[in-house]
Amino acid sequence: MAAPSPGHSLILRVQIPASIDATSTIASSVAVAGAAVTALDIVESASDHLIVDVSCNVVDDDHRDRVVAALEEQDGVTVRKVSDRTFLIHLGGKIEVTPRVSLRNRDDLSRAYTPGVARVCMAIHENPADARRLTIKRNTVAVVTDGTAVLGLGDIGPAAALPVMEGKAALFKSFADVDAWPVCLDTTDTEEIIRIVKAIAPVYGGINLEDIAAPRCFEILARLQDELDIPVFHDDQHGTAIVALAALYNALRVVDKKIEDTRIVVSGVGAAGHAIIQLLHHEGAGRIIACDRQGAVHRGRDLSDDHRRWIAENTNSDDFTGTLKEAMVGADVFIGVSGPNILDEEDVAAMAEDSIVFAMANPTPEVDPLAAARHAAVVATGRSDFPNQINNVLAFPGLFRGLLDADAAEIRTEMLVAAARAIADCVRAGELNASYIVPSVFDSTVAPAVADAVHSSIASAPSAPAAVETVAV
Amino acid sequence: MAAPSPGHSLILRVQIPASIDATSTIASSVAVAGAAVTALDIVESASDHLIVDVSCNVVDDDHRDRVVAALEEQDGVTVRKVSDRTFLIHLGGKIEVTPRVSLRNRDDLSRAYTPGVARVCMAIHENPADARRLTIKRNTVAVVTDGTAVLGLGDIGPAAALPVMEGKAALFKSFADVDAWPVCLDTTDTEEIIRIVKAIAPVYGGINLEDIAAPRCFEILARLQDELDIPVFHDDQHGTAIVALAALYNALRVVDKKIEDTRIVVSGVGAAGHAIIQLLHHEGAGRIIACDRQGAVHRGRDLSDDHRRWIAENTNSDDFTGTLKEAMVGADVFIGVSGPNILDEEDVAAMAEDSIVFAMANPTPEVDPLAAARHAAVVATGRSDFPNQINNVLAFPGLFRGLLDADAAEIRTEMLVAAARAIADCVRAGELNASYIVPSVFDSTVAPAVADAVHSSIASAPSAPAAVETVAV
Repeated sequence: MAAPSPGHSLILRVQIPASIDATSTIASSVAVAGAAVTALDIVESASDHLIVDVSCNVVDDDHRDRVVAALEEQDGVTVRKVSDRTFLIHLGGKIEVTPRVSLRNRDDLSRAYTPGVARVCMAIHENPADARRLTIKRNTVAVVTDGTAVLGLGDIGPAAALPVMEGKAALFKSFADVDAWPVCLDTTDTEEIIRIVKAIAPVYGGINLEDIAAPRCFEILARLQDELDIPVFHDDQHGTAIVALAALYNALRVVDKKIEDTRIVVSGVGAAGHAIIQLLHHEGAGRIIACDRQGAVHRGRDLSDDHRRWIAENTNSDDFTGTLKEAMVGADVFIGVSGPNILDEEDVAAMAEDSIVFAMANPTPEVDPLAAARHAAVVATGRSDFPNQINNVLAFPGLFRGLLDADAAEIRTEMLVAAARAIADCVRAGELNASYIVPSVFDSTVAPAVADAVHSSIASAPSAPAAVETVAV
Repeated sequence: MAAPSPGHSLILRVQIPASIDATSTIASSVAVAGAAVTALDIVESASDHLIVDVSCNVVDDDHRDRVVAALEEQDGVTVRKVSDRTFLIHLGGKIEVTPRVSLRNRDDLSRAYTPGVARVCMAIHENPADARRLTIKRNTVAVVTDGTAVLGLGDIGPAAALPVMEGKAALFKSFADVDAWPVCLDTTDTEEIIRIVKAIAPVYGGINLEDIAAPRCFEILARLQDELDIPVFHDDQHGTAIVALAALYNALRVVDKKIEDTRIVVSGVGAAGHAIIQLLHHEGAGRIIACDRQGAVHRGRDLSDDHRRWIAENTNSDDFTGTLKEAMVGADVFIGVSGPNILDEEDVAAMAEDSIVFAMANPTPEVDPLAAARHAAVVATGRSDFPNQINNVLAFPGLFRGLLDADAAEIRTEMLVAAARAIADCVRAGELNASYIVPSVFDSTVAPAVADAVHSSIASAPSAPAAVETVAV
């Protein structure tokens, strides 16, 4: 299923003997080797040779080597340099810290720094709430990780996680004008992480936990939500749950089913699965079956952790005890946040009429989406090369924009639901179909719509019921 | 001694009856009340009145109130609004986090974020040194405080310290293109601060400790220097010491004395005093007497902390046991990093011929600099409204630029000395005189010169002797 990806895009600097068909020879060699050519630029032309920069996308490093070999098989052709565009844009990092004030002369310095700054410090000392007005706190979010569950890569450590956190910070600013800063922690101790985040909190108006392994992430989230006076969000839980719920709203509109009546199978009860189940439960989904590697989670199982016990208590009222594949029979909805290729085409075929499949494992989904689409009415994945990408980028920038604008002190379930509804509503009635249940991540109306919805949900529901942090455990 | 300051600059919106001398009436009222008028702008003109924005500098809040009252005493004059320009520029904070990459389309996203970023993460995971090439680490410094010794304000806490740290970050970027981020810690526990800074270190190429109270700051600095593989700098120690040494080099040139022969009295053995004494000692100053509130530090005293004991062992070889004022008699140099008004004009008069006085307590120096100048050949302070401001801004941006450019793993005494010499040398021979011993903080040649000097000192002295961290304790 692997295809050339713009995430693995090369620039090959190729020398070739001058001739009328030099560039077409290069282009066809690269294409025959399976790469997607995106540009050809002649860098230098001499009487006897050309230097050409070939931009192309490949599948992986082996594929890159085959493409280079295919070029060099041609008479007189030399590949002089291979540049990887992904690495090129990472050189020196992806974010920077920029002054919002001018510091060109003594008057500037006297106001932004000493001696003038002392009066601002004292104003905050006397009225701590002024920190939101007179410092970066009002617009700044910490993106906190311990590097233990980074993308699909697992426990690669805090330094190796930094490129993801920088990317996230760049997205926060580009999509919602939120200032986000990477906090990559060289510790995996739950209590220490909690202490550190509490200690660094004075600078921030919100905390975005990221890529912290389950079950540690649940304890960290719950404790920080309890002990801090700013909103604490775990993107792998809340972000994924918001976008999955948004996609489900629209998928159910496509097949004309109601969430109360649908039988929903959730594969995976880690960070994402647990949060999705909580949100579905809050939204009235009464017929959820959650599955882990041992099959359905039910009250009869000896469950070691609070999160699975909460799931057993609040889902699967029929006490179904079978496997994931058995649970699929007759199901209306499959939501996968687990691992690659755990279902076959037959499992999708065994679902109810007009079934919905969200196979979100990345990079390889729970079931081949093309095979699933032969039986399901709606198929979505976490990938950008299939329709209906369930991508957290739709949620977190706008959500934090709304939280910061509202000076929110916590995140409540209603805010997550409001964000999901806002994302779903960005797909207009005339646009909605089985291949377009979520808006594009580049739809610039999404983040403001999410921000407004979150802000309004705070303003309109001061006495709303239980916050997320009190639902489970 | 207080004068109107651009750090306390107001914009008064004044309504006044229309007349030929309306603006001159306003200007003279404000001036008579003692404020410095910097601008008059007519905002609105009607047949019967004018609205004028008066920009002016005042001394303090009481003075502001007197200026407003003086205006309102005039017939028909109303002050409609008082804006404080220092607070205005602080609204929303002084720094932001800006992407260095474009995120406009799917290809951008695939390279800067998923899926492409995964290959960059794995490259760092496999070769941790690549973090300096592929992330912000190569250019990023943490400005770490616990808010316990902020400017002259004392223990005002981490939130109230944030405006200073933001200002510092803005200076780092404006003066030396260093990305600096405020880390304001809600803890004053030495061990916890050490643990936190170690845990957040993966993101940073250097640590700038700031405004942490003594003696805690010594232990934190020494331990972090020992336990981290990036340079750790305490601006209140090293920064002040570098600039004081730079000023002393040039002051000694002005009076034609040698550091080995001069008798130097240092008042204050906190963070700054201790570091200054260490650096003077390293530079061969053999006749130092350090004084604290109990008078001279000498071997006969029962000293409770390691830092004073180090000073007793390494200075004051004559075992002078008198008071600060007694120590001043016949001294060549006075360096004050202590408190306001502890010396009189007579104390300066009692010094040796061609004496040098650095009265650096802020905002009120150890001795009135105008009185001191009647007897001393060279007078410097920490203030911008007297000649010879000893300002850390001359040191820290260029120093870290040099450290980052060299991928330095530690700070060594030779680097501090190199920085001091570079700052001193930015005052050209033809410019040097008793009123110009340090360059202007807006001299744009200073930071690059310091960076070069630090970088060269690393390259040229791989086997140089003891680092700062091993000098004391």
